[in-house]
Amino acid sequence: MLKTITWTGTAVRLLDQTKLPTETVYVEITDERQMWDAIKRLVVRGAPAIGVAAAFGVYLGIRNFPENDNGLAEFRRRIDQVCEYLKTSRPTAVNLFWAIDRLHRVLTCYPPCRSTGAHLISILKQRALEECLKMLDEDTAVCRAIGEHGLKLLQELAPAGEPVELLTHCNAGGLATVQYGTALAPIYVGAERGMKFHVFADETRPLLQGSRITAYELKQNGIPVTVICDGMAATVMRQGKVRAVIVGTDRVAANGDVANKIGTLGVAVLAKYFGIPFFVAAPMSSIDLTLATGDQIPIEQRDPREISQGLGKITVPEDVDIYNPAFDVTPADLVTAIITEHGVARPPYAASLRKLCR
Amino acid sequence: MLKTITWTGTAVRLLDQTKLPTETVYVEITDERQMWDAIKRLVVRGAPAIGVAAAFGVYLGIRNFPENDNGLAEFRRRIDQVCEYLKTSRPTAVNLFWAIDRLHRVLTCYPPCRSTGAHLISILKQRALEECLKMLDEDTAVCRAIGEHGLKLLQELAPAGEPVELLTHCNAGGLATVQYGTALAPIYVGAERGMKFHVFADETRPLLQGSRITAYELKQNGIPVTVICDGMAATVMRQGKVRAVIVGTDRVAANGDVANKIGTLGVAVLAKYFGIPFFVAAPMSSIDLTLATGDQIPIEQRDPREISQGLGKITVPEDVDIYNPAFDVTPADLVTAIITEHGVARPPYAASLRKLCR
Repeated sequence: MLKTITWTGTAVRLLDQTKLPTETVYVEITDERQMWDAIKRLVVRGAPAIGVAAAFGVYLGIRNFPENDNGLAEFRRRIDQVCEYLKTSRPTAVNLFWAIDRLHRVLTCYPPCRSTGAHLISILKQRALEECLKMLDEDTAVCRAIGEHGLKLLQELAPAGEPVELLTHCNAGGLATVQYGTALAPIYVGAERGMKFHVFADETRPLLQGSRITAYELKQNGIPVTVICDGMAATVMRQGKVRAVIVGTDRVAANGDVANKIGTLGVAVLAKYFGIPFFVAAPMSSIDLTLATGDQIPIEQRDPREISQGLGKITVPEDVDIYNPAFDVTPADLVTAIITEHGVARPPYAASLRKLCR
Repeated sequence: MLKTITWTGTAVRLLDQTKLPTETVYVEITDERQMWDAIKRLVVRGAPAIGVAAAFGVYLGIRNFPENDNGLAEFRRRIDQVCEYLKTSRPTAVNLFWAIDRLHRVLTCYPPCRSTGAHLISILKQRALEECLKMLDEDTAVCRAIGEHGLKLLQELAPAGEPVELLTHCNAGGLATVQYGTALAPIYVGAERGMKFHVFADETRPLLQGSRITAYELKQNGIPVTVICDGMAATVMRQGKVRAVIVGTDRVAANGDVANKIGTLGVAVLAKYFGIPFFVAAPMSSIDLTLATGDQIPIEQRDPREISQGLGKITVPEDVDIYNPAFDVTPADLVTAIITEHGVARPPYAASLRKLCR
């Protein structure tokens, strides 16, 4: 199985997802600038994977700091600087901020110790790396738990023995996390137990994470998948070929509004119209109780050239205006359930999400 | 202004729409096989333009038939053969069949005459060409009339002086017809009278007629246009930036169900959800009262490679299943009004369409 993120002992090894599905290329990231660029360019993408990658980015940014007895104050400034810098890579996925803040706490909130400054810097670097490695393991466990909770919902949808027919948008699979994924985790867990699935993968313009990445990993894992253009989702739903929609998320507000890849809102409206449940899989680290509603979630605007020439040909006339928001917000009333590692939240989300967060 | 279809005196000149927006290339079509291929490959596309092109195809297929006194029976067989052949190019747009049948009638239903066989064949060829040239002119007049009727609907949508903000899918503009277009005709007619518009053009995967063609012709005609990916339509509607959707159609059933480019159904569902009127512009030749409902409209399935490698790069892994219907059917209850050259049909369409057809 492909590894999204691994630690080699000296560098972070990322599967370059901009090259899929035609090339399987790994890149080694050795400093925080390379990591910023990898996150920005979507070499690594998917809210949970971005979180872990950013945490490693913090470590890479401080690991070469000189270990001098009188360097502690400067080390603190360096930590702040690296953390702030990495936070500018992408604005929407809250996991990025959550992971960077977690590393920041490890590096700055520690009990008083009698070490010399030099020794303390060394210890803190070591703790930062340990925290990153812990996050790698945790992410796998979190996804596995989401898979278990989600599977219970999916099992109710199809008669025993018949394939569960799903539709997903973008990629919230193993390649959006360390392993298993969020939205695809219930499928992988179910398949291990002999359950059958069929997945429609929206290709997900402009960057085609659905056709390039979701189709790739489902195929690799032996799950039947059919790629469709985003505009075909309505047709397969109308034909009765979809029993549920399941997607990931980049941030969930306290009221249950869900930010996810552009196009998700449209799929949610269609699911409502055709009477199909719309599930969101979210690690707790994607839930942001500090934002009352989804309107407060910052939406990343990306380069118009992703639309006009992202695919090898120029497909928009010169000087024509292009709008390219990377995410949209699906209002909570279109969301049937939010599946986390702690369990399943149902409406009203203000109460159910708060309960899960305790 | 670009010319979709012209008659040079010896050949049909088509703007090769597969090359837009980067190259403006015309091709000269001199026989029915070239025309079949041009229709199949979408060199010429858009239901009304396909109709006129197919009519010329019939003429090109019979114009070189030997003019012998005893050749009339064979000429008849040739006419039938050419008509049947051209009908296999694309199955969904009813205009294709309507136009071919119209030429077939001209060539086969004529009053008894005392000409010799040779002379009659010559006369019939001449009449076929005249009918094609008449259809060129008629199409322009029809589109102009659709523009006038549609404009009345659009004028009600925005306060005087403010731009009318519209969203369209695929291309039902001048390049889908001889001139003016159907869905875009009200915009062109309104702009001539000083009205302001802003159009969101869905790029319309897989073949991007929206970004390649609609954006191109609106830009050329000075109408402000913003290209979005199909999955962004929900977001711009939610932001209140769309006062109406207007699209063309390839066939309207007797009950008002509308076949149009894949993705239209999704846009119609979104418009309903967000409380936005959804207008369909249709020449009477697109209305097919022989079909009770849209479920009887044949839907063309196209080459999966249009999705997996249509844009210069391979974007779907090898051996992954791809579904590529070229059209979808929007049920009549999602359609606010159907705008024809004879006037505007409102629900219930069974009655209003029949009335317009009289």
